[in-house]
Amino acid sequence: RKRILITGGAGFVGSHLVDQLMLDGHEVTVADNFFTGRRRNIEHWIGHENFELIHHDIINPLYIEVDQIYHLASPASPPNYMYNPIKTIKTNTIGTINMLGLAKRVRGRLLLASTSEVYGDPEVHPQPEEYWGHVNPIGPRACYDEGKRVAETMCFAYAKQEKTEVRVARIFNTFGPRMHMNDGRVVSNFILQSLQNQSITVYGQGDQTRSFQYVTDLVSGLIKLMNSNYTLPINLGNPEEHTILEFAKLIKEQVGGSSPIIKKPAMQDDPSRRKPDITRARTYLNWEPKVQLLDGLQKTIDYFHNELSRSK
Amino acid sequence: RKRILITGGAGFVGSHLVDQLMLDGHEVTVADNFFTGRRRNIEHWIGHENFELIHHDIINPLYIEVDQIYHLASPASPPNYMYNPIKTIKTNTIGTINMLGLAKRVRGRLLLASTSEVYGDPEVHPQPEEYWGHVNPIGPRACYDEGKRVAETMCFAYAKQEKTEVRVARIFNTFGPRMHMNDGRVVSNFILQSLQNQSITVYGQGDQTRSFQYVTDLVSGLIKLMNSNYTLPINLGNPEEHTILEFAKLIKEQVGGSSPIIKKPAMQDDPSRRKPDITRARTYLNWEPKVQLLDGLQKTIDYFHNELSRSK
Ligand SMILES: NC(=O)c1ccc[n+]([C@@H]2O[C@H](COP(=O)([O-])OP(=O)(O)OC[C@H]3O[C@@H](n4cnc5c(N)ncnc54)[C@H](O)[C@@H]3O)[C@@H](O)[C@H]2O)c1
Ligand SMILES: NC(=O)c1ccc[n+]([C@@H]2O[C@H](COP(=O)([O-])OP(=O)(O)OC[C@H]3O[C@@H](n4cnc5c(N)ncnc54)[C@H](O)[C@@H]3O)[C@@H](O)[C@H]2O)c1
Ligand SMILES: O=c1ccn([C@@H]2O[C@H](COP(=O)(O)OP(=O)(O)O)[C@@H](O)[C@H]2O)c(=O)[nH]1
Ligand SMILES: O=c1ccn([C@@H]2O[C@H](COP(=O)(O)OP(=O)(O)O)[C@@H](O)[C@H]2O)c(=O)[nH]1
Ligand SMILES: O=c1ccn([C@@H]2O[C@H](COP(=O)(O)OP(=O)(O)O)[C@@H](O)[C@H]2O)c(=O)[nH]1
Ligand SMILES: O=c1ccn([C@@H]2O[C@H](COP(=O)(O)OP(=O)(O)O)[C@@H](O)[C@H]2O)c(=O)[nH]1
Repeated sequence: RKRILITGGAGFVGSHLVDQLMLDGHEVTVADNFFTGRRRNIEHWIGHENFELIHHDIINPLYIEVDQIYHLASPASPPNYMYNPIKTIKTNTIGTINMLGLAKRVRGRLLLASTSEVYGDPEVHPQPEEYWGHVNPIGPRACYDEGKRVAETMCFAYAKQEKTEVRVARIFNTFGPRMHMNDGRVVSNFILQSLQNQSITVYGQGDQTRSFQYVTDLVSGLIKLMNSNYTLPINLGNPEEHTILEFAKLIKEQVGGSSPIIKKPAMQDDPSRRKPDITRARTYLNWEPKVQLLDGLQKTIDYFHNELSRSK
Repeated sequence: RKRILITGGAGFVGSHLVDQLMLDGHEVTVADNFFTGRRRNIEHWIGHENFELIHHDIINPLYIEVDQIYHLASPASPPNYMYNPIKTIKTNTIGTINMLGLAKRVRGRLLLASTSEVYGDPEVHPQPEEYWGHVNPIGPRACYDEGKRVAETMCFAYAKQEKTEVRVARIFNTFGPRMHMNDGRVVSNFILQSLQNQSITVYGQGDQTRSFQYVTDLVSGLIKLMNSNYTLPINLGNPEEHTILEFAKLIKEQVGGSSPIIKKPAMQDDPSRRKPDITRARTYLNWEPKVQLLDGLQKTIDYFHNELSRSK
């Protein structure tokens, strides 16, 4: 039984991680500023003796005693991280330094939720962890991409210089209940459009591909990585690749509505393919995604269905 | 006449910038923590009514009233920036945020001393500013390379979001008096070796190339950039390329000693070529290097000669 801090624990991924770690019997503390997180995502644990919620912004120091830190606090989708780019950078730089300072002091272990965006617009497919990436340092996405890159750099600097134990997960596209409804991401858009009998908007020809992992698969990968001895960055994602048009058809069929699938202009700089090479995760964590796409989609559709009813 | 802050103003480049701006009649304030800078580099100005020296570490906030900030504070050579990687990252992240916060509050203009290292181990030659670079985010140089990349990202985030005026200079290899003697850099090594009749150590076959600009050329470029309307990053460097073996012969000849030129094992990952594309600087700043290599070398040799006599 461990004392575990989850920064960003009221968010989409963080709240599922809370669920699993609480079920495993740990003492869990969430630190969140509720920028994109919601109290509702974790309210079923409030009052539980092993659970604590701290309303805290990690760009300020935090002094608590813990054994492990899952460091997830950061806006994650383009509309959220572009809303206040300066804050996004401060969270990923000052915030990460604070959490590493905490890990250093308590001699704990920190896992950083990094991202496939450190590879930028990749020129190598699929992306292995050795790939150095292709990122525009001054583009509109840089606040997130470069913020996460330097957060990784910080982790390995503390590891080398202070012997702080760090783990780095490079997370690829993830979906599931509690994901944000108005992010403009493809899974949430297509489900909401189907549920509301609106047109399903495919950008471009729909032949671009993506690979989506279900959130509980990611959570099991994060926990395995935290507790493994593997210290280099590791990709966590689902290598099952689908075209966007396939997603549109799948989701429409599963929801069972009458939405027409329509084509919209292509997005500028839209990567034509993205897919993780998960050889490291398979080899060192004995991890791979288990949830079938259709099962994950069904759970997500049910969640969105409920959310829509609630908001009526 | 302007009130000008120079962070890192007691260092190699900073002290030459101080000299020029003082001669131009400005009020100059230096903020430096003397990590690699020396009081001696600027002591000829101490006591002058337009000059102020603040012993200050920029990872802490600084509240003063100024019109322009030349933000140079950062260790710059591999032995210096690898000495304490965490501090290097804090200086480039927290330190840059502080200076941007200052620029924002006083509605001043900030110029960031960035570096050719944002291009990493370049796959494009020569390097234009549009090139996104090839940097290992978790390698031993990352504390500097990624620190400077995200410092650039921060500048453009403040520019966009807060309308802070920023300028970004990507500085290529620079040499001249007051450069550090024990950095292990090629110009200082070869001069010291020649002056002391020690073997001149060429790493590898010596057919790798570099381009070196003399420090006063850089200073004039920095001042032109600060006062121009050009807001994107701009390379400042000398495109005149020489092999390292040529440098060895040139310096040996100019010093006039009897040092043998010997070959040592090649450095790992040593870039085989580095050279700036300075089209932007030519076009938008009407700037190009003016000092002849031999003239610059002579001044640097004289300086090292004096330094050696002093330390005897
Ligand atoms: N969801 C994905 O597909 C995906 C992919 C790659 C990486 N990631 C990473 O995983 C992590 C979680 O992502 P998510 O999808 O759950 O996003 P999310 O927006 O749902 O969760 C982020 C949480 O961090 C909190 N937060 C943000 N800034 C904070 C600050 N300064 N102080 C305290 N709390 C703060 C938010 O309130 C929110 O609860 C992020 O670090 C993200 O970069 C997610
Ligand atoms: N010299 C080059 O060839 C070169 C090339 C590319 C970029 N640059 C950049 O130019 C700038 C100046 O480089 P330089 O060659 O003069 O190096 P330098 O080491 O001589 O000067 C850096 C100065 O910054 C000061 N400093 C470092 N950390 C500080 C902190 N936290 N707070 C306050 N002061 C601090 C040092 O004491 C020193 O005076 C650096 O930002 C460097 O990255 C230099
Ligand atoms: O329990 C802790 C210890 C440190 N920090 C923060 O982490 C930063 C980095 O820590 P580090 O030990 O590297 O820095 P130092 O304290 O030496 O400045 C500090 O500045 C604090 O703001 C924190 O939030 N909680
Ligand atoms: O309503 C939508 C939203 C997204 N997409 C496409 O779906 C893919 C994935 O987009 P998302 O924003 O979900 O993730 P990312 O591009 O960051 O991988 C991209 O090719 C988008 O152009 C789409 O066709 N219709
Ligand atoms: O004159 C100033 C103004 C700000 N800052 C620092 O710059 C940081 C970033 O400034 P910003 O305005 O972005 O941040 P805020 O004050 O809103 O937190 C602040 O936290 C301060 O530490 C400073 O050193 N001098
Ligand atoms: O005593 C020395 C020092 C450096 N070099 C070479 O000179 C070049 C420039 O090295 P420096 O460290 O000055 O600059 P950088 O590699 O960062 O451009 C590199 O190819 C080095 O291998 C050399 O041959 N002998």
